[in-house]
Amino acid sequence: MVMKNVGHMNAGDDETSYANNSALQKGVILEAMPVLDETLRDMFAAAESCCFQKCWKMVDLGCSSGPNSLFVISHILDTVEQLCRNKNFIGSDNSPEFEVFLNDLPDNDFNNLFKLMSGQVIGKNKKRRCFLYGLPGSFYDRLFPSNTLHFAYSSYSIHWLSQIPEGLDRNNRENIYMARTSPPEVFEAYAKQYQKDFSTFLRLRGEEMIAGGRMVLTFVGRSVKDPSCKHHSAHYTLLSQSLLDMVAEGLVKMDDLYSFNVPIYMPCEEEVKTVIQKEGSFNLDKLHVFPVRWDAQDNIINYENDLVFDKHRSGKLVANCVRAFMEPMLAAHFGSSIVDELFGRYEEKMGEHLSEQKYSSYYTIVISLSRKRK
Amino acid sequence: MVMKNVGHMNAGDDETSYANNSALQKGVILEAMPVLDETLRDMFAAAESCCFQKCWKMVDLGCSSGPNSLFVISHILDTVEQLCRNKNFIGSDNSPEFEVFLNDLPDNDFNNLFKLMSGQVIGKNKKRRCFLYGLPGSFYDRLFPSNTLHFAYSSYSIHWLSQIPEGLDRNNRENIYMARTSPPEVFEAYAKQYQKDFSTFLRLRGEEMIAGGRMVLTFVGRSVKDPSCKHHSAHYTLLSQSLLDMVAEGLVKMDDLYSFNVPIYMPCEEEVKTVIQKEGSFNLDKLHVFPVRWDAQDNIINYENDLVFDKHRSGKLVANCVRAFMEPMLAAHFGSSIVDELFGRYEEKMGEHLSEQKYSSYYTIVISLSRKRK
Repeated sequence: MVMKNVGHMNAGDDETSYANNSALQKGVILEAMPVLDETLRDMFAAAESCCFQKCWKMVDLGCSSGPNSLFVISHILDTVEQLCRNKNFIGSDNSPEFEVFLNDLPDNDFNNLFKLMSGQVIGKNKKRRCFLYGLPGSFYDRLFPSNTLHFAYSSYSIHWLSQIPEGLDRNNRENIYMARTSPPEVFEAYAKQYQKDFSTFLRLRGEEMIAGGRMVLTFVGRSVKDPSCKHHSAHYTLLSQSLLDMVAEGLVKMDDLYSFNVPIYMPCEEEVKTVIQKEGSFNLDKLHVFPVRWDAQDNIINYENDLVFDKHRSGKLVANCVRAFMEPMLAAHFGSSIVDELFGRYEEKMGEHLSEQKYSSYYTIVISLSRKRK
Repeated sequence: MVMKNVGHMNAGDDETSYANNSALQKGVILEAMPVLDETLRDMFAAAESCCFQKCWKMVDLGCSSGPNSLFVISHILDTVEQLCRNKNFIGSDNSPEFEVFLNDLPDNDFNNLFKLMSGQVIGKNKKRRCFLYGLPGSFYDRLFPSNTLHFAYSSYSIHWLSQIPEGLDRNNRENIYMARTSPPEVFEAYAKQYQKDFSTFLRLRGEEMIAGGRMVLTFVGRSVKDPSCKHHSAHYTLLSQSLLDMVAEGLVKMDDLYSFNVPIYMPCEEEVKTVIQKEGSFNLDKLHVFPVRWDAQDNIINYENDLVFDKHRSGKLVANCVRAFMEPMLAAHFGSSIVDELFGRYEEKMGEHLSEQKYSSYYTIVISLSRKRK
């Protein structure tokens, strides 16, 4: 399975769409924001006027089709415009112009994204000259001409691999990700695919960026070196258990489950550092790891409505969130007819899991990189 | 009615989609191609190496969602690359890079367009570094940063006005475009809106283009000065007659028909020249007017299959073609329930019209413009 064909979030804006199930992602964006702000400040502290006077070009890599992308872009442009003012990069008749590219795979729901954007003012300045473009393509391919990009941002996308790790075949049996019962070659295949993909990603962005250009990347990672540690992948374990239950009832074929693996990798801090250093195009200026509670979205709602924990509600919220990014891939592999049933079961298991592990978390890594002088 | 809200071709790829009803447009593209080729040759004859070595940036304005856009872009890139070679703009390790922007209103079916493009090689050179972007927005607004665009192309789009001409109200009665029975203020309103819109278009593109940048624009026009001449707008007259029949049968409200006017203008040669000269950003290097037979699409099919003229088949083909660009607007105004019935009637009327006027034509204008030194 190559990601270019099925790698997109649930389209549209109904109950199971990504657009309506991305509150958790928004929480992550807020948590990573200090790193983003510091990177932009630092970029302008080092910048010379000539680099920015004409046009500042940025991309949101893996923007998907929800409102989060516009939220971040508005914040970035407001910040950059203020920094331009502070540095006197803006004359009275010479405001900076902004080019913003919204990138995702060609199957992404760009129509919905463009409808969301249409007529919207991006950020606080209504007179800002900001040009928005859709960029359909994989960030494991070149996306821009050489030496033209100032800033790349990505939130919760680059943990997606370019494909299911090569050579997995049916070795991973009923597991759909690295698990305690996976054989060693599964861990190797995943790690190797990650190193190859992240290295390609860095090399290509390095070619596209001006010297001194910056990237802020947020992705799911793990807090421990051991990739078989069960805590970092409970959501996949529960999903493979739900699938296995359906196999037992004859609703899913065992062979289909054996051939399904999730093309995602959650690296640990050391792996990230090693690839960046080895590839060589970028300096790693900052790396920050933080836990995200699975029921973060529910916490927000509970807080607002003064409710107590309810495992059914929490289970459903987290299940919807996982469904929003997993459904297209599951439907392509198992057929769309199983999806409702699967997530019904998943919802229950997740509810139980959350009531047992009240603070169930996964880890997010945010890194800030600067393009080395060429 | 502002075009930003309903201005798009029929989406998707089924029987009534624009993607499957754009053969006529393709014929026009081929007819205009010598002007396109000459413009590109001329551009490179005048160009200095420094302008193009890095990256050549072009846009297809109003590209819609069918295959025609990719056909033209492939041709343009093949031509430009050959011209670069002839001028020795290409070193062995320094191939030019191309940025291609596909523009249409935000309601355009970009998802379908991106699916068509996905994995496609654009033009003959498989190794060509060509970056494709979607650009949702009106070409009556700014689309690019200042002084960055090399080439703009548009086929069958800029005859669309930015809105229904101001002040038409219900003056045009049962007509939906300028017609013999339209009062003078209708002709004035249409002409004024055209002058305003085309002038805005030229000013904005002038800001975006580098000095020496070129535009090739193809649009529907009329061959005679008199805008009430019935020959240039037979397709709208037949459509208003079909609507009027439905009013008589109580299927459409008279008031709805009175308030409907098509936001299109088909200028004559003199009007085009006057606006370009008055606005002042561009030189008009070439203007070519040619007739297009309404049943051009049918001719192609007849020719291939060795068939004789059949008014039913021809009527249906032309009706489908008109439906592909008119349906979204008609559905928004009259409700989508009337559309099948309307085009059933239109098909018959068009068949009769074509059998009476075997060489029924409308006129297309293609112009080549160069951005003056700034």
